[in-house]
Order: sequence, then C-alpha cells, then structure tokens
Amino acid sequence: MGSKDVYFFGGTMTEGNAQMKELLGGKGANLAEMSLLGIPVPPGFTITTEVCNKFYTEGKDAVVKMLTEQVKEAMGKVEKVVDGPKFGDKENPLLVSVRSGARASMPGMMDTILNLGLNDQAVEAIIARSGNARFAWDSYRRFIQMYSGVVMGMKPVEKDDEDVFEEIIDELKHEKGIKLDSEFVTEDLQELVKRFKAVIKDKLGKDFPTDPWEQLWNAVMAVFESWMNDRAIFYRKLNNIPAEWGTAVNVQAMVFGNMNDRSGSGVAFTRDASTGEDLFNGEFLVNAQGEDVVAGTRTPQQISLEGSRRNAVLKGFSEEERKASGLSLEEMMPEIFKELTAIQKKLELHYKDMQDLEFTIQDGKLWLLQTRSGKRTGAAAVKIAIDMLNEGQIDEKEAILRVDPQKVDELLHPIFEPEALTKATVIAKGLPASPGAATGQIVFFADDAEHIMKAHVGRKLILVRIETSAEDLKGMDAAEGILTARGGMTSHAAVVARGMGKCCVSGVSELRINYKMRTLTIGEKVYREGDWISLNGTTGEVYDGQVDTKPAEMSEDFETLMKLTAKFARLKVRANADTPHDATVARQFGAVGIGLCRTEHMFFEGKKIIAMREMILSETTEEREKALAKLLPLQQEDFEGIFMSMQGLPVTVRLLDPPLHEFLPQDITGIEEMTEAMGISESRIKQKMSALHETNPMLGHRGCRLANTYPEIAVMQTRAILQAALNLKKKGIEVFPEIMVPLTSSIAEMKMQEGIIRKTAQKVFEEMGDSIKFEVGTMIEIPRAALTADQMAESAEFFSIGTNDLTQMTFGFSRDDIGKFLPIYMEKGILKEDPFQVIDREGVGQLIKMAATKGRETRPNMKVGICGEHGGEPSSIEFCHIVGLNYVSCSPYRVPIARLAAAQAAIRYK
Amino acid sequence: MGSKDVYFFGGTMTEGNAQMKELLGGKGANLAEMSLLGIPVPPGFTITTEVCNKFYTEGKDAVVKMLTEQVKEAMGKVEKVVDGPKFGDKENPLLVSVRSGARASMPGMMDTILNLGLNDQAVEAIIARSGNARFAWDSYRRFIQMYSGVVMGMKPVEKDDEDVFEEIIDELKHEKGIKLDSEFVTEDLQELVKRFKAVIKDKLGKDFPTDPWEQLWNAVMAVFESWMNDRAIFYRKLNNIPAEWGTAVNVQAMVFGNMNDRSGSGVAFTRDASTGEDLFNGEFLVNAQGEDVVAGTRTPQQISLEGSRRNAVLKGFSEEERKASGLSLEEMMPEIFKELTAIQKKLELHYKDMQDLEFTIQDGKLWLLQTRSGKRTGAAAVKIAIDMLNEGQIDEKEAILRVDPQKVDELLHPIFEPEALTKATVIAKGLPASPGAATGQIVFFADDAEHIMKAHVGRKLILVRIETSAEDLKGMDAAEGILTARGGMTSHAAVVARGMGKCCVSGVSELRINYKMRTLTIGEKVYREGDWISLNGTTGEVYDGQVDTKPAEMSEDFETLMKLTAKFARLKVRANADTPHDATVARQFGAVGIGLCRTEHMFFEGKKIIAMREMILSETTEEREKALAKLLPLQQEDFEGIFMSMQGLPVTVRLLDPPLHEFLPQDITGIEEMTEAMGISESRIKQKMSALHETNPMLGHRGCRLANTYPEIAVMQTRAILQAALNLKKKGIEVFPEIMVPLTSSIAEMKMQEGIIRKTAQKVFEEMGDSIKFEVGTMIEIPRAALTADQMAESAEFFSIGTNDLTQMTFGFSRDDIGKFLPIYMEKGILKEDPFQVIDREGVGQLIKMAATKGRETRPNMKVGICGEHGGEPSSIEFCHIVGLNYVSCSPYRVPIARLAAAQAAIRYK
Repeated sequence: MGSKDVYFFGGTMTEGNAQMKELLGGKGANLAEMSLLGIPVPPGFTITTEVCNKFYTEGKDAVVKMLTEQVKEAMGKVEKVVDGPKFGDKENPLLVSVRSGARASMPGMMDTILNLGLNDQAVEAIIARSGNARFAWDSYRRFIQMYSGVVMGMKPVEKDDEDVFEEIIDELKHEKGIKLDSEFVTEDLQELVKRFKAVIKDKLGKDFPTDPWEQLWNAVMAVFESWMNDRAIFYRKLNNIPAEWGTAVNVQAMVFGNMNDRSGSGVAFTRDASTGEDLFNGEFLVNAQGEDVVAGTRTPQQISLEGSRRNAVLKGFSEEERKASGLSLEEMMPEIFKELTAIQKKLELHYKDMQDLEFTIQDGKLWLLQTRSGKRTGAAAVKIAIDMLNEGQIDEKEAILRVDPQKVDELLHPIFEPEALTKATVIAKGLPASPGAATGQIVFFADDAEHIMKAHVGRKLILVRIETSAEDLKGMDAAEGILTARGGMTSHAAVVARGMGKCCVSGVSELRINYKMRTLTIGEKVYREGDWISLNGTTGEVYDGQVDTKPAEMSEDFETLMKLTAKFARLKVRANADTPHDATVARQFGAVGIGLCRTEHMFFEGKKIIAMREMILSETTEEREKALAKLLPLQQEDFEGIFMSMQGLPVTVRLLDPPLHEFLPQDITGIEEMTEAMGISESRIKQKMSALHETNPMLGHRGCRLANTYPEIAVMQTRAILQAALNLKKKGIEVFPEIMVPLTSSIAEMKMQEGIIRKTAQKVFEEMGDSIKFEVGTMIEIPRAALTADQMAESAEFFSIGTNDLTQMTFGFSRDDIGKFLPIYMEKGILKEDPFQVIDREGVGQLIKMAATKGRETRPNMKVGICGEHGGEPSSIEFCHIVGLNYVSCSPYRVPIARLAAAQAAIRYK
Repeated sequence: MGSKDVYFFGGTMTEGNAQMKELLGGKGANLAEMSLLGIPVPPGFTITTEVCNKFYTEGKDAVVKMLTEQVKEAMGKVEKVVDGPKFGDKENPLLVSVRSGARASMPGMMDTILNLGLNDQAVEAIIARSGNARFAWDSYRRFIQMYSGVVMGMKPVEKDDEDVFEEIIDELKHEKGIKLDSEFVTEDLQELVKRFKAVIKDKLGKDFPTDPWEQLWNAVMAVFESWMNDRAIFYRKLNNIPAEWGTAVNVQAMVFGNMNDRSGSGVAFTRDASTGEDLFNGEFLVNAQGEDVVAGTRTPQQISLEGSRRNAVLKGFSEEERKASGLSLEEMMPEIFKELTAIQKKLELHYKDMQDLEFTIQDGKLWLLQTRSGKRTGAAAVKIAIDMLNEGQIDEKEAILRVDPQKVDELLHPIFEPEALTKATVIAKGLPASPGAATGQIVFFADDAEHIMKAHVGRKLILVRIETSAEDLKGMDAAEGILTARGGMTSHAAVVARGMGKCCVSGVSELRINYKMRTLTIGEKVYREGDWISLNGTTGEVYDGQVDTKPAEMSEDFETLMKLTAKFARLKVRANADTPHDATVARQFGAVGIGLCRTEHMFFEGKKIIAMREMILSETTEEREKALAKLLPLQQEDFEGIFMSMQGLPVTVRLLDPPLHEFLPQDITGIEEMTEAMGISESRIKQKMSALHETNPMLGHRGCRLANTYPEIAVMQTRAILQAALNLKKKGIEVFPEIMVPLTSSIAEMKMQEGIIRKTAQKVFEEMGDSIKFEVGTMIEIPRAALTADQMAESAEFFSIGTNDLTQMTFGFSRDDIGKFLPIYMEKGILKEDPFQVIDREGVGQLIKMAATKGRETRPNMKVGICGEHGGEPSSIEFCHIVGLNYVSCSPYRVPIARLAAAQAAIRYK
C-alpha cells in the first residue's frame, strides 16, 4: 500500500500535529500537539480516518493486513517511550486504551475500551509490580465488561434489554449482603471475573480472548464499526456531519494514578474560572484516579500553597487545621508542582486561552491526559479576554470571540450568593424564561403584589400565576420574579419579564395552583401566600425557601469589551421598548434606536383602557372615532416620552397588533369594574366578548386586519405619532419616526395601510403647518409576506422580520401551546433547539433570507431587521449577519449580548 | 407620422379583424369582425391602443395633430355608410358614441359617452327627422350629464361628494310634484337642459361646448385619460394588466330603437340558454331602447312564433290571448326576423358557440350591436357542447373547454323549482358552503334531527347551529341542509356538508340563535323549531318558508363528456372519503382512488367514542394501550369496509390528526353521559378538558405531534390498516394502502413516524405470516414542510399537499375566524378571491411548487397530490396541473368537476 495510516505521538517521535484534525480526528491531533510541545503525554498512536473509510469499502481483513506492520512499529515506539512495559509481555505488560476520535466532537456516540491487554497472566504481573491486587482485579473485571460489551455485542441496546453483567454484580452483592461496588474485596472482584467469563462462554459459545493482539485488533475494528451505529448516524444527521469523514482510532498507553502513594490524579485551571483572576489553581488526590477527584467521595487537596491558604481562610481554618485537612501538591510533591506550573504556563501561551488540564502522576512521574479551553463564568470570560488582550497574547478580534455572549447575560442580572446556593433545594424545574435570580414571598394576584409593594416598600415578592395576561403588568413589575405553570419561552410572562429585565421561570407543569385557596402545591408540599421561594431564571430552577441573591456587577473590563464590539459589528442593535424607562435602559446599554415600540402595552393603564374599551364596544364608525379621539392625546403623550428618550435615534412604532378581545376584562371582577366605569350593561359586554371570541386568535382578526377593517384606528395612531414628533421638533429635538404595519400578508393590505397613513400625515402636516420625514414599513411575520417580499417592498420602505410569529406559522406551532410537546420533542431529539429561542435556519431561515433578497430586488437599499425574541440570541444574530440584515432589535437587557454576538458574527463571517 | 392610427369598420370598408385585439382592443376588433362577416353593424372607427401610449408620452396636442386627418377620413366613411346624416350637420346630424376598449375586458373601469354631436340645433333637427321631441330632449340632457361628468370633471368622485345634476333633477321633481324620471314631459327635459348648462357655466366659468368636433376630441382624450384613473390603475394591478397595453377608443354611429314604431330593440340567444336545446329564441320591444328590454317595466315580446306559442302554453293562454299579449317579431316584422335568423346562424357557425346577441331596429333597418358567447346553465353547457361536437362544429378538446366546471356542480345537486323560486323571499345571505337547494323545518340540535328522522321518515329538516362540531355528524346527515351563523367556507359544517353532498350555508352573521328558547331571529322575524326555511347552498341565500326543490338529473350527454375527459386529463382525480358509502359514491363519479381517508371521523360513533375517551383520559402508556386495544378491532373493521369499496384502487389513510380535546364532550350533557358511561368523576373529565385546552388549537398538539408523543396511537392505527388489508388479501381482494403522516414540519418528525409504522408493519406481517405492499408518505401542510421538502422526501414516499392548513399558515388566517374580516377584504378588493376556495398562486402556490420540485430532487418519481377543499376547485386544479402534480383529491360530489377541470387544464397547458 505504501500509504501512511498510523501516526505515532509521544516522546520526541511525534508525527502529527494540531493542524491534522481531518486525518487524525480532534483527539489524535491534540495529543500529538501536546507531545510536540514537549509535554509528557502517555505515548500512543492514531489510526487515520481514511482507514475507517477503507474499513467500509474493503472490509476488515484488508484493513488488518494493511495496518499490521504499521501498528507493530508504532507499538514498538510506545514501548520505547514507556521504557519497560511491553504490549503482551508476561512480566511487565503494557496496557492501552482504545478510543474513537472523529474530526468533529461526537460526545458519547462511539465506544471506548480501557485497560486493554489484560488477561489472567497480565493481572498477576500488574499485581506483582504495583503491589495492589484490588486495583488490578477491578481493572480486569471492568475491562471484560467493557470489551465484551463493545466488541462482542453483549451491551444492552435498548433500555429494557437485560444487562447480564449488572445482573451478576447484583447477585454477588446479594450473596455477600453488601450494597456498594466499593464494598467488594479483592476476592469478590476475582469471583466476578470468573462469572463474567462463564456467562460469555455460555451466551456466545466462545471464550473471552486472552491474546492482547487479538484484543487490540478487535477493539480497533469495533471502534470503526461504532461509526455506523444508530446513535452515531442519528447524531451526524442532526449535526450535518458527513459519513465520509470517518473516525480515527487512538491507541494510548494506560497510566494509573491509583497505583501507589507516589501516584495521584488532578484537574487544574490556568486562571480562576470563576473570577478570571490570573491564578493557577486546581485540585488533586493522592493514589486516586481522575474519576475520584470529581466523584466527591474524598475531599480533594489544593494544587498550590496559595490556593490551599485562601481556601483555609474561607473555611476559617488555622494553619494547623489547614495542614491536617490535606497539604497542597506544592508542599507534597514540589518537583511535580514545579513541572506542572511550567506546563500550564506553556499550554496557556501556546493555546492563548485559559486551559482546563487533567493530569495523572504514576509512581512519581507526571503525565498530562488532556488540555482544553476551560469553562468559565461570564465575569471570568470578560476579565480573561481583556487581560489577555492587554498582555498581548490575543488581538481585539480574538478577545471578542473569547466571550460567550450567552454568559454576558449573567453580568446583567442578580445571581444567587454561591454559598447560599449550596444549601438550597430544587423543588421544581421549568423553562428559563427570563434570566437572573430572585427570592421572595409568594403572592398569587398581580393586584395584591402592587398593593403590598405600595404599603411595604422593600418587601420581596414572587408572583405565582397559572399564566399572566396584560392586566398583570403592574403586579409583575412590583414582584422580584415571576413563576408560571403554563406558557413557553415566548409566553406573555416570559416576554414581558425579559423586557423588564426581571427573573421569570415559566411552564412549570408540576405546579398546582389554587387561586381560591391561595395555595401552590408541588408534589406533596403545599406553599401558602407569604411562604418564601426562589427562582433561577437562567436555569429554570425553583428553590424552596429564601436563597440570598447579589446584584449584577458591570466591570470596567466589560465596558472595554463593549467598546471593542463597535469597531467590528456590522449589524446595528436596536431595542424593543414600549416606555421611556425601557428606552432609557436600552440606550444606556448601547442600543442605537428602537426597533419595536408596541403600542398595545400603552393601552392598559387607567383612562386609556377605558377609552380603548369604549372603542371596542362601538357599533358605528362615528362611535369608534369618538372613543379614539379620547385615546389620541394619551397616545401622543406616550410617544412624546419615548421620542424624547430616544432623541436623535430612529424609533419604529408598530401600529395596534393584538386582537381586540385582549383589551376586554378577563374575569367577572373585570366585567363588573367595566360596567361601573362605563355605565353599560354586563350583557352587552358579554355579548361583545362572545362576538370577539376566536378559535385561533393567533390567526384571527388582528394586526393590519383590524386597521383595514377599522381604518380610523390607524388614522388615530398615525396622528398621535406625527403630532408627537412635530411637537418635539418645535422644541428642537430630533425625531425619526418609522411607522410599522403589523401582520401583512399581501401587498394589497400594505398599500391600503400606507394610503391611510400617508393621507393622515398630509392632513396633520397641513394642520400643524410643518412636516417631518418619516418612513412607512411593515413587519414580515407571515410566511406569505416573506414569499412575496418583492411585492411588499413596492410599498414598504423597511422590513422588520417578526421571527416569533414567523416561527409560529412556519412550523405551525402555537407558542402558547407547545408546552405539551416541545419538551418531548427536545428529549427525543426531534428538535435540537427550541425554534422560538434559536432561529431555525433550515426552515424559517429560508423565509428570512427570501424576505431580504426579494425585498432588495425591488428596493435595493431596503433596510431589513428582525424584532422578536431571536434578536437577542447569539446564534440567531449570527444568522442575521450571514443573510445580510441591517439590524436586530431585542429587549433592553439583551442589547449587550446582541452587540457582542453581532461583532463575533462580523469577525467570523466577514 | 405616416403610421396607421385609425381603423374603420362598417359596410364593406372594414380595416380590422378579430385577430387585432392588441392594437384595436377587444371591442374594436370584434366590431370589425362582425362587419367583415357582412353583418350590419353601425359604422365607426377605432383609434388604436398605441395612440394611448403616445398620449401619455407626447401629450394631447401632438396626438390631436397626428389624428386629425385620419379621423376626418374615417368619419367620412361613417357618413358614407349611414348615407344621410353627417357629423356636425345642422339638418341631419350624425350622433356618435365614444367608448373605451382595452385588450383585456375592464368592465366599468373607464368612461363612455353616448349621443355625442348634440347641441341646441342638432336636437331640433333630430326632432324634425324623428318626430319624437321627448326622445330628443331626453337624449340631449343625458348627453350633457355624461359629457360634463366625464370630460369636464363634474362627476362625483367619492360617494359623499355632491352630484349637482341629480340635485337639479330632484329639485325639478319636487317643483312638479312628481317622483319618477319617466313622468317628466318634454318641457321638463328642456328645462333640465337649461339648468344643467347654467350650473356648468356657474361652476366652471365656461359654456358647455356646442361644436361637435370639439366635443369629439375632448371625449377621445377623456377616454385616454380614464386609462390612468384610480379605479383603472387599481383594477389593472389586481389583474396584472400592464399599463403599457393602453386602451383603444371606439367612435361609432348611434342607432335608436326608440325612434318610432318601425324601431325596436331586443336580445336573442342562438340556442336555449337554460336547456341547451337548438332553438333560436329571444325577446324584443317595439319603439324601445336596449335598456327597456331588460328593465322589466314593459313585458317584452318573443322573437319567434314558436317561442311565443311555447310561452303561451306555459301561461295557459289561448291563441287569442297570446296575440293580445304581444305578437312575435316573426309575425310583426317578418323580413327583419328572417334577416336576424340568418345572422344568428352565421354568427354561431363563425364563432362556433352559442351566441348572445343585442340588436336594434331603427326605422325598419336591423343593426347588430353586440355578439358574445352566451351565458348558460350547466345542463345547457353540457348539451350544447356535445351537440356541437356531434354537429362537427367543434372538436373534442373544444367540447371539453366549453363547459364551465363550476356549472357542472348544478347537475349533481337538487335545485329549486324555477317557478317556486320566483315567489320566494330572501331573508339572509351567507357563504355558499356546500351547493344544492334544500327546504325543511328548523331543528336546532343534531340529536333531535336524528331522532325525528328515525321516528318520522320522510320529514325534511334544516339543522340550524351557531357552528357544528364532530358530534353533530349524524344530525347533519339526517337533515336536508345545514345553516350556521359562524364559520367560513372550510368550517366544519362546510367541509362535512360538501363531503356528504349536502346543501349548507355557513357564516350567516345576521342569524341570532337562542338554543335555550329554540329560536332563530333574523332582523325582527323570529323562527321557531318546526318553521320552514329554504337554503341555496350554491349562492348562499336563505329563503323564508318552503321553496320546492327538484332532484339532480344526470344526462347522457354528461356521461359522454365525462368519458371524453379521460382522454385528455393528465391529473388523476381521487376522492376524500371516510366511509364505505362515500367511497362508493366517489367511485361512481369516476374517482381512481382515495386521496384522503380521515380516521378521526370514525371515532365518533358509539363504542368507538367511549374507547377513544378512555384513551384520552389515560395517565400512563399502559392505560393508553389498553384503551387503544379496544379501538383496534373497530378501526380495522372501518378500514376493511373502505378497502372493500375501493378494491383495486389505492387508499391513502391519514393517521389521527385533530387535537384530542375534540373527542371530549362539548357541553354539560355530554360530560354527564361520559361520567355515566365510563364510571369516572365529572371533575376528572373537567380537569382533563382543562389540561387539553389550547389557545390556538390549530397550531397545537395535533397531527403527528400526538403520535410522536404517544407512539402507541400510530402503532394501533398502523395495525388496524395492515391487518384489514391482509384480511382482504386473504379473500383475494386487491388493496393498496398508503399510510399518511399528518402535520409534519421536519424530517425528524417524519422519520420517527416512519420508524414506528415500519416496525409495526414488520410485527404484523410476522404475526399474520403474510405481507402486503404499502407506502408511507406525509401531508405537506405546514410551510416548513414545503420549504424542506427535499429532506421530507428522504423518508416520505408520497406527498399529499394539505392546502387548507397550508393556506391557513401561509396567510396566517384561521379559517374558523376569517368571517370577521374576509368579507370586508373581498369587498375592498384586498383579496380577489377567498384563498380557502381558490389556491393563492402567488403565495401558497410558491410553497406547493417548492414541495413538488424539492421533493422530486430527492425522489425523482415522487407522487405528489393535493387533498383539501381546493382539490375540487377548477382554477386550483389548473394550477396543480401547471406545477406538475400527479393527482387531486376532493369530496366525492366534486369528482366530476375535478375530472373536467383536469382535462381542461391538460388541453390548455399541454
């Protein structure tokens, strides 16, 4: 054959490097890279991805034949590096691991075999050399279990299939009267090996293979086979990974941290993963394997003396107590510590990022098993990025790319005190509807929340509702957080809470709320009004009792990062804001305009809701105009406030969108209030409510359908917008109004609205003797509007893509109702992501792209943006950048996230 | 210039012909054609459409200059043909009409001026020559009104603008103490002319023009100007007529049927428009204008003696009475009758179609004013087409094209007795939801209808409901017709009624139904249970009382026509059928398979609904499987019945589609029945109902979302289908089952369903020791499925495009709720057609095309059809043909319509 199919790594003979991921897979390439850096890595070799393809075209025998010489040679090099143990040797056997490693990470999809090379002789040799019989037998029985599962097909496939090995283990426990695996003594493990072998012989009619080479070849082939198992195929399909990529196979010498007291295992971070401080830190355990460090059965020791001392201060330990609780690695094995310190520095400088390391010390020798970019908090991410930029390790683009925009959210909302959180109990889990942490006393009614807060400033309340409606706004504002039993990520509660920057957990289906009794029942436990609970809106967790929180802290580094984004982002970031307060917050966070000002939220206060209801109850155009005349000055005032907050920046005002019945009272009390306030009969209200009832309100009489049937509504709103703008203009304030028509599905609808708006504008300008520039555009939120965007652009001067509704209609999913199947769809992998959170690029994305492309065919400089929840979600923002939109608009508290995501997209996709 | 801009027609000098529509417009080209045939047409000339474009690029003066000589010359020819009157002559003035005439018909969009050439002298000359002063003055005042409106801009533009002429007329009526225009005497008309002129002078500061040539040029230019009026622009936009086409102007000599007793006007049909019989027939009036014949103030006389005698027989007149009531034209003016008979024959042979003629006799001379294809009933259309085919006038393709598929519907349903209908009063109008006529006694509850029909066979009932639900099925079946207050053309009532071939009028918003009082109120009138009403489901009209109906009659000619369609149609026609009865009807009408068998309708009977509800109330998979096990044999039985009816033909079975709450009772009585039947508490049922409640059920937990969350449902249904198929196979009956997954939005959903179905099939085949070929496909009814059809086709073996839901989601219109705005949208021209009736080619059509194209990219021989209401609508069927679908599926009673439409599409679009 002559081709090179096996690449050695380790010692000074490494053949691959980090650039060779296509051939060696991610794992193989990185092991080679570490080795090239001179870092001690257990030696091994990688069989290339191309061999995997040969395996499928030419079969097992051809592949074994082709590889035999190369593998033998590579194994020879491994033996040379480990200098002593030899593969298959009876006195000093070399054990290896066999692992898959594809070009893209496919966690858990394919198989791994550890401790390969063990057999009855080898186990004795290991005992002889390590002096640790239990360790050796436990390794052996695990090897048999793993190998016969993966290679010999004895692994249960479906969850109901029997697992013969687990049955044997349970049987022996029963016989011995013990409960835990750790209670097995050496003889028990020996017994297990015996029974395992017997059951294999019984089931398969053949013996467990004792020849290490036979074991090795079979294991390698099994890894190749696992590339085509159902899980892997499904995973690749979901992640668009071509089958032709194949997987590499890594064969690597085993090292053992649990061999003796000159051994150990640990994990370390090159900087503080919580604060970002430039401090090498980590934990380790003597005479232990990697799993033991994370398992928590033994308390790990600190790596550095400084870390150990800081820890002692936190715990209030004296120096004596500190030493008694466990010395640091620096104290116990100073040479190893020095070597590790040098390695971590080297790795960080090489990878130019904070690293998360795994190491094992075997009999006084340090081995690195893994290095990867370390996970970190949002605060740490920002600090590390800016520090490394200042250190000259990375450039500005890289600094921006280093911060996960999702993590930035943490910096903008309160979080739980880490200490308090360790003692808290999760009682339920729902959707992480609006981030942040909140603790407070339960209240069930929005009115109550409002009244309590007026009477007792400083009280902390959690508003608990089956679902919220527009009437609950003030109560939501008064509460620390909102918890609902129904509703998804884009339910009323979720959307409003995010807009307020307030914590919310929604759709917690296990909540049973009894409004009459004022109780909340979760499982067996009953919570009453006034009881404390806590919410984590970032994770969706609900906690029992009071869990202390601490406020958001925005660092100087964060400001630096935000300034950097402006240098690179091409997408503009606007905010969705309906009040002067929201507008001001958004502006502080760096929004360059309002992309969505919803006028309907304005109608829910005092006089406005009364006039609105009069309008709805009108039977004639005249009555309707009379009621609208009352609304006009109130709306105008609202607009003046918002225009003032946003002076100098554009404000997109969306005309009335929701169905009229949303403005009618939702219950008997509301109806009674209405009859009193308006002096009309209950039956008339009920009659109107019934007339306005819709089977599918989402697809009903709303948006421009309202204003096309009752044009006087659009007339009033246009008046209010332009009169407000002209009033401010008189005072020398710059205003850029953009009037947006919602829910258009055809050019005829749009043209009719445009006509009404322009005609009204002309009248207003004549009346006021002055004029102002304004634009008329439309939401693209109905599939048909996207499909016919070339026509829509004949009338619309800008498009704002309403991805919430567009997603609803493109998928046929009601966001109010998806709670019944979306969680199951996610669990079964039918949906990888909630399409209401992350833009579905394959489906909805086609329509977004079509809207922009077709719109610009007609109007080449068409401004196209998105509003809706996706405007603040990084992957969606990236997509908007890729398809060439002009801006995204999101809730004020997500503006920084959007700015960062926009900059990242611009760097990644030019 | 040298170009030819004016084309003469009339006498023997005609310059244009029917092929020159682009240049002369439709009207001009056809007038020329008639003239070429030697038929006496009032002479005139056509100014070409190209001149219209010049008018807009070069202006009025240039056009007048260019035309002057040509128009003078053409006018000279007109004068030559009329041989006497001359344009602008004082003694014998020639009057002309000026009319627009575009390439495409734009009825009422542009302006017309009659009697042009009149002035104070001309009116006296006309009186002198005609001896009819009243006629002359009335013509004059009408001319002033028309001319000053069109040319001088005195026509009211908006409906609230004042109409000065009508005000003057009203004033004079008031002064004279009269009410009708016809009561004016000559002097009054003279007075009107005076006052009209005065008001023109007053308003415009100039006199009404007296020079006929000035009148003519201004009129011609006004017609060109009307090409760009708002109405015309809007109409063109709606109908995709390019502005560049321009309009021609026709100037034609006036002829007067009301000049004296040797004059008259009439209309005639070359064959009987009602029955299709080959009988020349029509009506006329002596000394009258065309308007008078249709106005109905005088009773017109028959044209032929035979017609007159037939008429007399119908009325029971003796020959004396017949003569007294008015002689036929044949008797009164035998020469004219002879000439007319020859002309009608010539025109029919020339145009090869039944013609509708307008003629005027002026002072003993016959003039033809118009000929066009005559409107006809469905029965007449079929008979005429087949007769003409047999006569050798037209070929098979032409015969097929001659029958309007919509009219075929009339042949398949009962209609009102024409005589009875003349006496009936329309009391309300709704949507023509399901065609046919029905008369019966009002009943408000489906149960009642069922019981009454069991007790009193032969009673006729009309079921009157606010809306219907699945529980009403049997009652709907028992009634003659269904009337609902809510719901559109695709509401439950409409869809089910069409499927049953039963008359239905839906969405009659003026109905007020009180179930408790059992009353139906329309306006002031209250109808009680048992009162008679009648429905016309073809027009949407509701009649007071009993209006007799007569059953459908299918002629031999119709059978011949249907056989012809098979020769040409490329699209196959299947039926939507859920029962063996429906399947049999469909097969009789020529369906070649079932394209949509909805399984949910099967669940509403007796034992099935109980088992279904047990399934819904299940809390665990085990409980659910137990309930499903009860449903299995019942479903299997259903399928055996349908497969048997359809043996040898494919049957597409759609798995469960609607949300589960549709199977729960809708009211208290239902809940009580359920608690009794199932022995469970009311509160449990209510709890489940509340848990299943959805805000937007259309976009909720339904379709494959149900079967993906509860796979056991799909397992049971697959079993039922395949066990039924294998049972019949055993008996030697051929079955071709196609299993269809509803409401897929992604390939992952589809693959999961396909997996369940294939796995179940394998089990069934193993159990029964036999197998059968079947296909697995999906509905494409969600925009995303169409957008990703290339992926869907990886799993689906066929696509059935569900145009109802696809239209709902593409437009964002809930078909249950559109009643609130759709009528207004149609009225305002925002929608030209109800998209739930006629496929929206521009929007929804893009997705349909995409589904077929992308699907076949993956699976080149993919079978793609549509089901849903559009499958029986001719324009939609044409679209399906154009985009290359394989079949349409529609309700059984529309199969013949679909077959005809499919053949027409194939002939028109190859």
